[in-house]
Amino acid sequence: MKIKAFGIKEKGGKAEPFYYERNVGANEVRVKIIYCAIARGDVQFISDDWGDTKFPLVPGHEIVGIVEETGANVAGLKVGDRVGIGYQQEACFDCEFCKAGNEQFCTQQKVIGVHCYGGLAEYIVVDNRFAFKLPPALHQVGSVPLLSSGLTVYSGIMKAQLPANSVVGVLGAGGLGHLAIQFLNKMGHQVYAFSHSPEKKEMINQLGAEFVLTSNPNNLTAINKKFDFIISTLNVPYDLEGFLKILKPQGKFCIVATPLEKQPINLGLLYDYAQRTIYGNYVGSRRNMIDMLDFAAKHNIESAVDVMPFSQVNEAIEKVRIGKGGIRLVLEN
Amino acid sequence: MKIKAFGIKEKGGKAEPFYYERNVGANEVRVKIIYCAIARGDVQFISDDWGDTKFPLVPGHEIVGIVEETGANVAGLKVGDRVGIGYQQEACFDCEFCKAGNEQFCTQQKVIGVHCYGGLAEYIVVDNRFAFKLPPALHQVGSVPLLSSGLTVYSGIMKAQLPANSVVGVLGAGGLGHLAIQFLNKMGHQVYAFSHSPEKKEMINQLGAEFVLTSNPNNLTAINKKFDFIISTLNVPYDLEGFLKILKPQGKFCIVATPLEKQPINLGLLYDYAQRTIYGNYVGSRRNMIDMLDFAAKHNIESAVDVMPFSQVNEAIEKVRIGKGGIRLVLEN
Repeated sequence: MKIKAFGIKEKGGKAEPFYYERNVGANEVRVKIIYCAIARGDVQFISDDWGDTKFPLVPGHEIVGIVEETGANVAGLKVGDRVGIGYQQEACFDCEFCKAGNEQFCTQQKVIGVHCYGGLAEYIVVDNRFAFKLPPALHQVGSVPLLSSGLTVYSGIMKAQLPANSVVGVLGAGGLGHLAIQFLNKMGHQVYAFSHSPEKKEMINQLGAEFVLTSNPNNLTAINKKFDFIISTLNVPYDLEGFLKILKPQGKFCIVATPLEKQPINLGLLYDYAQRTIYGNYVGSRRNMIDMLDFAAKHNIESAVDVMPFSQVNEAIEKVRIGKGGIRLVLEN
Repeated sequence: MKIKAFGIKEKGGKAEPFYYERNVGANEVRVKIIYCAIARGDVQFISDDWGDTKFPLVPGHEIVGIVEETGANVAGLKVGDRVGIGYQQEACFDCEFCKAGNEQFCTQQKVIGVHCYGGLAEYIVVDNRFAFKLPPALHQVGSVPLLSSGLTVYSGIMKAQLPANSVVGVLGAGGLGHLAIQFLNKMGHQVYAFSHSPEKKEMINQLGAEFVLTSNPNNLTAINKKFDFIISTLNVPYDLEGFLKILKPQGKFCIVATPLEKQPINLGLLYDYAQRTIYGNYVGSRRNMIDMLDFAAKHNIESAVDVMPFSQVNEAIEKVRIGKGGIRLVLEN
């Protein structure tokens, strides 16, 4: 069938009506899109920050909608189901990564917005294994950013295998960070959130973290805590070495965002009377997604969102581009 | 009793006869030193590269000797036992790190050559829990560098929890690197050793690794392998990003040495369709030491060593300083 979408034809271009043909394969479902988030990463794709965007681009990889059509082999979903869709359209389910349950590293995978058209559209067609039933308790629009940002921070946190009541830090309290704070708090850890924005203190406290203002570098040492875990969601340069130094000897530093600029770092800090770890995390597996949605539903975790109609897509993209889109901006069909 | 040692009185100074008083406590043993290695790190301590050396300094933290006196509480060792001593003189055995079996992170520990006088001496006194009986099969002088360098690479490798037959790399084939190659080979992995020294090819092949010459940057991509694990023993700048890119999505990069200069790095490589890890490793625990010595004895792992008499201590230090000390230089009493 012909699918109506919003396409970006060139680097930095406007979203314009765009149509493409896409039928539903035997393992696929067609989902009528209700919500699609516009994230910082989508805007970076539009402006081709990494130099590998393929145009025409239909961005959008955090989607909530209703199943309208199912392929011949689809057993787990039926027409009318409410589903969430993240960054992935399909995987091979046959490679070493898929077999190990790490579909996010499948070399044959199709990433939404990269290898196929995304969620700024009326419909999207994906493999049924990448359309996740939303637990009924999840807030419909507040759950949209969970599908990629939530998954990314949740799976990054889970990889650390933290003992209960760990001392943990979150760098940045934006789209990713404010979800990381909630997950860590509900997992029972002592959460410190580091931000250069004093106006975020109240929100951060409400989400369950102590606020540390990073515009004063003395605050880093003044907290006088040794951290088991820190997760960085910052895409601007920051005092990475300062944060490595406040990790415990076996502390872990998880990175889910980073500045485009290279950061100079003395990696000797990782072994200075220590066995410290820095690791990156890219979204998560299907198992992570299912666990994350269950955990969020059980603990009332949702994203702060501003909602705009799909018809205002270009205003929405511009708001995110200039940093005026609130914590997360979601379009509604 | 009065212990005769070689002391360095000031930054960059010569080793001169130096005497200090040290009696044997209830938990301690006095060991007559037969061998003590002079490592790159000792020379860096002498020249105060990190700015924190305390003078007078008695360097030397890889020691083999014979127990000559045991304290009242010592049950596991007796006079005449052949023991190896590494970087640690004592620990509190009461803090969270000691209780977890990670004595190397004990905040009360005394590090040999840092908090107390080291092995360039006739005797050394240490807690009996840090004098390790050498398995009879171990080569006496070839085992000396195992006690710190061997421990460091072994425990760094063990932390990676590699599946059998992993594809692994070793950067640098000096004191640390040539031991890492042997451990990884005997653990059953496919080992590639990266070096800028073509003359090391034969030794590297004999130790069980394939040689990759890094002076040609194309060789990095030409090997066309995806690595599960890489351990870097380099203390000169190198193409860190190039090596991160040849790691598998969940590959691990272990650092046991690093250049004094900061390295510019794009940490986004850690999460680029991946969940890559960089970790540092500082020596190891008592458990690691015991396991490492057993493993080395079982698999005939030993260090290449040049041996010189203690009387030539200053010539030996100078040789190591200018890089002419061979792979490892050991002094013999």
